[in-house]
Amino acid sequence: MKLHGYFRSSASYRVRIALNLKGLRAEHLPHHLRKGEQRDPAYLALNPQGLVPTLQDDSGEIITQSLAIIELLDETHHEPPLIPNDPLRRAKVRALAMALACDTHPVQNLKVLARLRELGLPDEQVTGWAAWVNREGLAPCETLIANEPGPFCFGSAPTIADLCLVPQLANARRFGVDLAAFPRLLRAEAAAKDLKAFADAAPDRQPDAE
Amino acid sequence: MKLHGYFRSSASYRVRIALNLKGLRAEHLPHHLRKGEQRDPAYLALNPQGLVPTLQDDSGEIITQSLAIIELLDETHHEPPLIPNDPLRRAKVRALAMALACDTHPVQNLKVLARLRELGLPDEQVTGWAAWVNREGLAPCETLIANEPGPFCFGSAPTIADLCLVPQLANARRFGVDLAAFPRLLRAEAAAKDLKAFADAAPDRQPDAE
Repeated sequence: MKLHGYFRSSASYRVRIALNLKGLRAEHLPHHLRKGEQRDPAYLALNPQGLVPTLQDDSGEIITQSLAIIELLDETHHEPPLIPNDPLRRAKVRALAMALACDTHPVQNLKVLARLRELGLPDEQVTGWAAWVNREGLAPCETLIANEPGPFCFGSAPTIADLCLVPQLANARRFGVDLAAFPRLLRAEAAAKDLKAFADAAPDRQPDAE
Repeated sequence: MKLHGYFRSSASYRVRIALNLKGLRAEHLPHHLRKGEQRDPAYLALNPQGLVPTLQDDSGEIITQSLAIIELLDETHHEPPLIPNDPLRRAKVRALAMALACDTHPVQNLKVLARLRELGLPDEQVTGWAAWVNREGLAPCETLIANEPGPFCFGSAPTIADLCLVPQLANARRFGVDLAAFPRLLRAEAAAKDLKAFADAAPDRQPDAE
């Protein structure tokens, strides 16, 4: 298996955690997003969105979109499960993952911030935008799991929701968001960071880290 | 079942199509997004994100996030399937849905456009932003399904990918995007629009349409 990614990409980080939790090995192929390597024609032929991650499985099949990749890994390698069995619980876990992966992360990614700069916004307004997106994205997540038993987002083991949360909190810190208002999210993050699968997936532990 | 939504919301539109395809009835409870009704405390208690749709099932359970709702409906009401059985095909179908539902729609939603106005961007730049997001979002989708047999995104029946595509194309038109470059997407849309389940879910067919 090959995983095309970038050390600081939240979406790549999610898939790295999933691979580690499942005990799956992949060859990591970095694409330097800040140098625009995701727009190389050879990469666009794999992933027309020009985004990371992209998974190439052993038969050469190409899968894009981090959540689709994680669902595939969960369906083909059952242990440990990253999505619970009960349909209603599955929906609640997926909804939290999507609150972050749909409504938060893409609105503050590199491409969006670059576009804001092109439109003439000064750097502090661009950083302010990213901080706003993270605050607005994380606050409802705190409420959504307020009554869930911990320590993880949904109970005693990590799910796809935690795989989205940990990278998003790292982004929020990078943009200067005060996370003190989110104690339940921080509790889930602390539990996750105690696991080697999460620690080994962290951006600063990747070969392409700068 | 109750579906909290808004006639013009793409995410509500996706779920309406899913309910119709599955032959499920729901009471439709509109929340007027342009009047800010999604921020009423009573609604925020159901959906802390202040977004639509929200599904309340017959036992009162609350599910947010359109794709999580559709996956739940697909898991609990199997016919017709909206996601294929084969894990790799599932991943490809989900990836297209997510290219639209994660990387496209949230970057051009009402809240983001309102924020751009607050930052001082004139109306034509805000509309230009929305058009840019739609073009950038749809173009890779055209490539991703270029070699898929039609007429739908993935074969002879609609999937969750079509449920995301049809509302997104409506958005793109609303923002003035020239869709001539996307013949494969338009072919899928035409097939979908021939189905009563899609036609009945269209924004202008909803009781709250203006």
